[in-house]
Amino acid sequence: MDIPEKVIDRLSLYHFILEDFDSDEKYISSSKIAELLRIDNSQVRKDIKYLDNSGKCRVGYDIKHLKQAIEKCLGFEHKREAYIIGAGNLGSALVKYDSFTNYGLNIVAMFDNDSKKIGQNINGKPVYDIASINEMIKKSEVEIAILTVPKKYAKGIAKIISEAGIKYIWNFTPCILDVPKEIQVWNENLIGSFLQFTNKEDEDK
Amino acid sequence: MDIPEKVIDRLSLYHFILEDFDSDEKYISSSKIAELLRIDNSQVRKDIKYLDNSGKCRVGYDIKHLKQAIEKCLGFEHKREAYIIGAGNLGSALVKYDSFTNYGLNIVAMFDNDSKKIGQNINGKPVYDIASINEMIKKSEVEIAILTVPKKYAKGIAKIISEAGIKYIWNFTPCILDVPKEIQVWNENLIGSFLQFTNKEDEDK
Repeated sequence: MDIPEKVIDRLSLYHFILEDFDSDEKYISSSKIAELLRIDNSQVRKDIKYLDNSGKCRVGYDIKHLKQAIEKCLGFEHKREAYIIGAGNLGSALVKYDSFTNYGLNIVAMFDNDSKKIGQNINGKPVYDIASINEMIKKSEVEIAILTVPKKYAKGIAKIISEAGIKYIWNFTPCILDVPKEIQVWNENLIGSFLQFTNKEDEDK
Repeated sequence: MDIPEKVIDRLSLYHFILEDFDSDEKYISSSKIAELLRIDNSQVRKDIKYLDNSGKCRVGYDIKHLKQAIEKCLGFEHKREAYIIGAGNLGSALVKYDSFTNYGLNIVAMFDNDSKKIGQNINGKPVYDIASINEMIKKSEVEIAILTVPKKYAKGIAKIISEAGIKYIWNFTPCILDVPKEIQVWNENLIGSFLQFTNKEDEDK
């Protein structure tokens, strides 16, 4: 089904809320979710209509059912393997983010050019020499590269991994990559996010 | 001006492109920007209409003018101070992200509960004891907290900084914070971002 990006974003936030709910509570109302996220109740109800969710009754949504419906809809059970390229702070933060596994992202290994990092393990994941990335992509079935290298290396690495056959790049660098059209690129734009946040502040004043 | 979030996001991506352009090129076409970002040319032109930009001619936009117009529109010159709470990998990655300064975000200090980190400097920024956060917020004019603590601490810290008078929380934890309405919260939802990316993949197939 074609679900708008914003809806996917909100559904994952609803999932955070449901995960956090006391296990002795069985139901949650759309207005409770709306209140926590400071959005309209009608928006929550509209988003939930995208789900195959039958657990609604007078007192609200069945938490367990709703959680499962979100998981099914957003494909949490569809496991995807990824390499992190760049074992600096950001790469290390992402490899330690155990929640990813629950949402279907399995980080297989990391790559770096720093001899002090190569051969180490970070959160149980090996750090390989960036010089071997071409070969590793070619011989593995990993399709996603998470790019967390310094900006100056971003374009060069993107070229190498594109030629090696990577299919998807989750780009955390503040650099727009110029790779062949068949490679999907998702720009994780922290600057844009900050600017959205601060422009919202100004607007609300 | 009320600029939609998605437009702000794209304008900041256009800015990345302009920053990256060879200094000997003077003009860029909307179609070049559109091509790099894989969006419609008409979208780029529409977004640029939000700007106070007069540097358009037959061969394209004047790069320098367009850059300045984006900077002005998104308030890069409006400097904002922030504390990072949590000096782990993610907090350290953010404090080392020098680009933030160009976009108006000045990180003043970090806070952590790890005695090995307290008293250190990361990228020139001091790491203070989390126990002092209440006092520090009260006596400073810092209004933004960037929350990068482990999930289990997120709600407790959010309560403390809210009571101390923080105004904005940029929340990197996978936890929905329940803080008073007058405090702005911006959820940086990496899981949602990944799911948007991977659901897009599936859809494109």
